[in-house]
Amino acid sequence: MKDVAARAGVGLKTVSRVVNGEPGVTPDTERRVRDAITALGFRRNDSARILRKGRTASIGLVLEDLADPFYAPLNRAVEEVARAHGALLINGSSAEDAERERELALAFCARRVDGLIVIPAGSDHRYLEPEIAAGVATVFVDRPAGLLDADVVLSDSFGGAREGVAHLVAHGHRRIGFLGDQPHIHTATERLRGYRAAMADAGLPVDDAWVSLGTTAPERVRREAERMLGGPRPVTALFAGNNRVTVTVVRVLATARRPVALVGFDDFELADLLSPGVTVVAQDAARLGRTAAERLFRRLDGVLEPPRRVELPTRLVVRGSGELPPAEG
Amino acid sequence: MKDVAARAGVGLKTVSRVVNGEPGVTPDTERRVRDAITALGFRRNDSARILRKGRTASIGLVLEDLADPFYAPLNRAVEEVARAHGALLINGSSAEDAERERELALAFCARRVDGLIVIPAGSDHRYLEPEIAAGVATVFVDRPAGLLDADVVLSDSFGGAREGVAHLVAHGHRRIGFLGDQPHIHTATERLRGYRAAMADAGLPVDDAWVSLGTTAPERVRREAERMLGGPRPVTALFAGNNRVTVTVVRVLATARRPVALVGFDDFELADLLSPGVTVVAQDAARLGRTAAERLFRRLDGVLEPPRRVELPTRLVVRGSGELPPAEG
Repeated sequence: MKDVAARAGVGLKTVSRVVNGEPGVTPDTERRVRDAITALGFRRNDSARILRKGRTASIGLVLEDLADPFYAPLNRAVEEVARAHGALLINGSSAEDAERERELALAFCARRVDGLIVIPAGSDHRYLEPEIAAGVATVFVDRPAGLLDADVVLSDSFGGAREGVAHLVAHGHRRIGFLGDQPHIHTATERLRGYRAAMADAGLPVDDAWVSLGTTAPERVRREAERMLGGPRPVTALFAGNNRVTVTVVRVLATARRPVALVGFDDFELADLLSPGVTVVAQDAARLGRTAAERLFRRLDGVLEPPRRVELPTRLVVRGSGELPPAEG
Repeated sequence: MKDVAARAGVGLKTVSRVVNGEPGVTPDTERRVRDAITALGFRRNDSARILRKGRTASIGLVLEDLADPFYAPLNRAVEEVARAHGALLINGSSAEDAERERELALAFCARRVDGLIVIPAGSDHRYLEPEIAAGVATVFVDRPAGLLDADVVLSDSFGGAREGVAHLVAHGHRRIGFLGDQPHIHTATERLRGYRAAMADAGLPVDDAWVSLGTTAPERVRREAERMLGGPRPVTALFAGNNRVTVTVVRVLATARRPVALVGFDDFELADLLSPGVTVVAQDAARLGRTAAERLFRRLDGVLEPPRRVELPTRLVVRGSGELPPAEG
């Protein structure tokens, strides 16, 4: 507050009046104080104040899909960080529905959480602006916030997919299919961009028939995989855009007439015990959650910094399925 | 209220006074009214009244272990029922810690949830008595409540384990090991009881060295499985008490020197694609969640019935691992 007063050229009492909405300040002075506050990146942080008062903090985590095991270690890591800070964690799942995400995040705020971690389903998070202004620390994870400048922690979806597809190319594949999640999902399009970059790097054309984005419902994935594996110029390899897709592709390939190479984005339990083991581009889901939660608690501790975007590297795990050579069509 | 008034032999106004704690009622009359309320199973249901007023209901779900995929479909089913009723679901995880379970459940109540679904970690739920008396509908799932008469939805752990072990006996096994979760967990001891019953049914002795309860940490499960498979009289088959145990046992058996039969409690993703496929006693986790949630919403709708215990059947799924014959030691 001293810095704000100095910058605005007013006394501490005047700053206090503006911040607390008390009368006795001219519009011009009020504007100067507000400009100084904005310039200094200060914002009234109720959460930090509450924490200092020793009340148990609570954190709301808006998850995406409960049935996707990728999120379990992320969720658990957030919970562990919260517990280490003596805070209570409450969750809810948007089930990939933007309206539901909004409803949940606002319901958590109405229940007076001190901070929010959001795995976005929607692409417009301006609805959180009043909450953030009121002091609810907010961090986005797995996917970026839409139309809002906020902390975000991501995996390198583009780089990871590019490396995975380049791995297939290095094993002799020229016709490679890409099966991904719905096109409005940031990670789905980033991974597709990585696929296209790897194909372009190798001077390989991409046939429209080799690319399919849509829901991860097993029926759709199965249909599209079978389509790409059939016809006169079938693909010899598939890149699966996330673990839900990979698991269905594994089922399709278990009954395929010839070996088909496969690299999947995301590691998953038992991937190494299948025959062949499934080569994956692994994300560190626990580290995503831990990093986001630690960032949130720094905010709750009152650290004032511009929003930061953290991108975590992925890791290619070679197990057999991605090293199969192209089979005769 | 009419029934209460009739039974207590007083007017409606008197019942209303007692229920709302207003003065002007003699102790004797008050006792008669309260006895009538108890006899009729009536309790003041704030939740139901709130729902009728049209406010959005919220449900708290206290989960156990986020990293156990068994709970994902249960959680999701609860969420779907809640959504169908226009209610908001918030979750938290006890991580198998009784104190954390209590803290979470009470925090949800403090945040004014209308109902609670609890997967118990602890064995004494009397701490919920005041909340239940105040109108928070409560249903327990997967494990029963401790020292509290409440609705509960379970799987038939005893019957399922008995059937799974009998299946191993039917394939010629005489020395069968049981690897289960910690002994304070109801499902763990029920499944052990099922194992002992199946062995007794077949007139087979149980060596103490064949039974091991404890955490599902992979190191412990691996060590115990290797111990049972070594020595002069190794087991020829293993029964795994839940999916966390089964997954580790599958890893141990993948490098075993001779084939060992395996039946696991709980189905799990990709169990059918392993070699051999893993024979399991499957629970219907989604149905557990759905049944518990529907029970809760009946309570929230104001249905007044004595607490009910629902036990869902399990299903033996034959895939190969449980049909291997006993190998030479």
